[in-house]
Amino acid sequence: KTYSVAAIPGDGIGPEVMSGTLNVLAAAQKQFGFSIDLTTYNAGAKHYLQTGELWNPQLTEELRGHDAILFGAMGDPAVQPGILERGFILAMRQEFEQAVNLRPVKLYPGVATPIAGLTPERCDLVIVRENTEGAYVGQGSTIHANTPQTVAVQESVNTRQGISRVVEYSFKLAMSRRKKLTLCHKKNILIEAGKLWQDVIDQVSELYPEVEVDYVHVDAMCFHLPVSPERFDVVVTDNLFGDIITDLGAVIQGGLGVAASANLNLDGGAPSMFEAIHGSAPDIAGKGWANPVGAILSGAMMLAHLGEERAALAIESAAVSVVRELPALAGPGMGKNTTGIAEDIARLISDD
Amino acid sequence: KTYSVAAIPGDGIGPEVMSGTLNVLAAAQKQFGFSIDLTTYNAGAKHYLQTGELWNPQLTEELRGHDAILFGAMGDPAVQPGILERGFILAMRQEFEQAVNLRPVKLYPGVATPIAGLTPERCDLVIVRENTEGAYVGQGSTIHANTPQTVAVQESVNTRQGISRVVEYSFKLAMSRRKKLTLCHKKNILIEAGKLWQDVIDQVSELYPEVEVDYVHVDAMCFHLPVSPERFDVVVTDNLFGDIITDLGAVIQGGLGVAASANLNLDGGAPSMFEAIHGSAPDIAGKGWANPVGAILSGAMMLAHLGEERAALAIESAAVSVVRELPALAGPGMGKNTTGIAEDIARLISDD
Ligand SMILES: CC(C)[C@H](C(=O)O)[C@@H](O)C(=O)O
Ligand SMILES: CC(C)[C@H](C(=O)O)[C@@H](O)C(=O)O
Repeated sequence: KTYSVAAIPGDGIGPEVMSGTLNVLAAAQKQFGFSIDLTTYNAGAKHYLQTGELWNPQLTEELRGHDAILFGAMGDPAVQPGILERGFILAMRQEFEQAVNLRPVKLYPGVATPIAGLTPERCDLVIVRENTEGAYVGQGSTIHANTPQTVAVQESVNTRQGISRVVEYSFKLAMSRRKKLTLCHKKNILIEAGKLWQDVIDQVSELYPEVEVDYVHVDAMCFHLPVSPERFDVVVTDNLFGDIITDLGAVIQGGLGVAASANLNLDGGAPSMFEAIHGSAPDIAGKGWANPVGAILSGAMMLAHLGEERAALAIESAAVSVVRELPALAGPGMGKNTTGIAEDIARLISDD
Repeated sequence: KTYSVAAIPGDGIGPEVMSGTLNVLAAAQKQFGFSIDLTTYNAGAKHYLQTGELWNPQLTEELRGHDAILFGAMGDPAVQPGILERGFILAMRQEFEQAVNLRPVKLYPGVATPIAGLTPERCDLVIVRENTEGAYVGQGSTIHANTPQTVAVQESVNTRQGISRVVEYSFKLAMSRRKKLTLCHKKNILIEAGKLWQDVIDQVSELYPEVEVDYVHVDAMCFHLPVSPERFDVVVTDNLFGDIITDLGAVIQGGLGVAASANLNLDGGAPSMFEAIHGSAPDIAGKGWANPVGAILSGAMMLAHLGEERAALAIESAAVSVVRELPALAGPGMGKNTTGIAEDIARLISDD
């Protein structure tokens, strides 16, 4: 089987972790008998500075033809904050209806977590973040700007349809795991949005009587997640809260070096996108200090999504073995450079 | 000097920690030569279930006459979530213009933090949360309810005046500390609100050229706060982000047992309110397992606010000594019960 994959390496350490990921995917193709037809696209800060191009209709149509998108990282100090985020990443998530942002929070053996006494057995959950609406619509209005009376109204727009698809996905995911689902929101304050989220949860839960359903306020989540991650299996939440608590999840699992994510289109109308959680880290670009494991595990999530479950599992377990031996998860203390880590993982897969 | 203070013990462990706090305040009065004229008010879940009363005009007028309000905790499983929060706590914050929610994040020596390797020297910051507006206005609208087309819009309303008073307070606070101020927001996404926050920061910072100003996205804050709290001195943020990151702050400083807060009215038109960060914890009420230190430190913040700085410092240092000897920060393992801990602190103050 052949999959058509678009690679967007982007900026900073993006191209470095991308090349490591492609190495590993090459080994997986040989070993598991599928093939990837890869097209690389120029996009990101450098490209924007040269051409003025962000997300645009032509690129949209080209990308739409692929089975999946592998994404490196975007960003550069020379580009104003917000431009690439809204002008590319969010545009892609929204235009391709990548409804679900899936972020596993898994502590791998040997990885140093900053949480005292935390063990891998206690830390294996998945955060499902709504990825297309909520506060991320970026809408609002400002009146009386530049006067003492300025009022800025910021809106969060939530639709039953948008919430439902994420909630249904979460229940299915919970059925394949420990059958526990937690809604994370702030429904005592965000009354309108919270009512709709809880309403959808209540309705969908009737179809999944085996799944135990729970609710935790987002502030309480920040309190519980670091010290009792074992309380959680699948956590479903809105776009903004998801942005916040997944960073906390990344802390717990030992930092951005290993955190992976998927941006899933669920209706088949456009490709899904897979990216490490870290950014472009311009300060360490070119040094070989970036850990490619977050990107490589995102590649494994892509394979799982494409139906290559066995290859995905092989990559994950090879990555776990290699990570276990690293003295640090990023920087000069890693013991190996970006390429070396990817090669080790590729070798383990080939030896399988 | 005599201060008129309103005590609202509330529910669950609220009355227990309140009585411990009053013990300590009694010792401080003797030692430092001021006096507190205390009036206790019935309010909270039990009172609401009996009388149907929440925040109301008569109570408002009575409370308004006091110099400060000491608050225990509110909440009971028999009262629907949201009722007391919006019907009392938020009503008070808003009606009394308690513009600033001040939450120190300080790791005391001997307190077990879940963050591996964190030391008290590295963890001493203050979070200043805007306390009257933003998403906490609770406004929005839902259309097509109970249909597949439901849309729920939730609004965050931010005013220059509301933000300015908090930002000015924060700069002053930074001047009395390490002269570093960090704005925490998500201005790349919440564009309208973020622009106004940054604008106010930029303007006020011109009056405080000595204060170093920084910006961190709320998601990145969740990433940095647990592992490098030493990066932060004064963090100023909006109501919702403040709610979230202060819970994370409480984790870092060793849990809710010691976390204190102040809800400050800055214009003198109404009293400020002081409360521990923990809730009513109905599951452990009546057992003597509640740690009163969060409430006692909130009492110390009240004294500092009233101008009794020396008494406030004496309470803090007595609490620090007692906390250092506790084997656990809450529950049966504390080694002492609620009353015992308060008595120890009171005794240390009297021995001063
Ligand atoms: C880059 C930024 C727009 C993005 C977000 O806010 O969603 C990032 O923080 C993330 O979590 O993927
Ligand atoms: C009780 C609740 C309304 C409150 C809030 O959300 O502000 C609490 O979480 C807090 O942080 O004081």
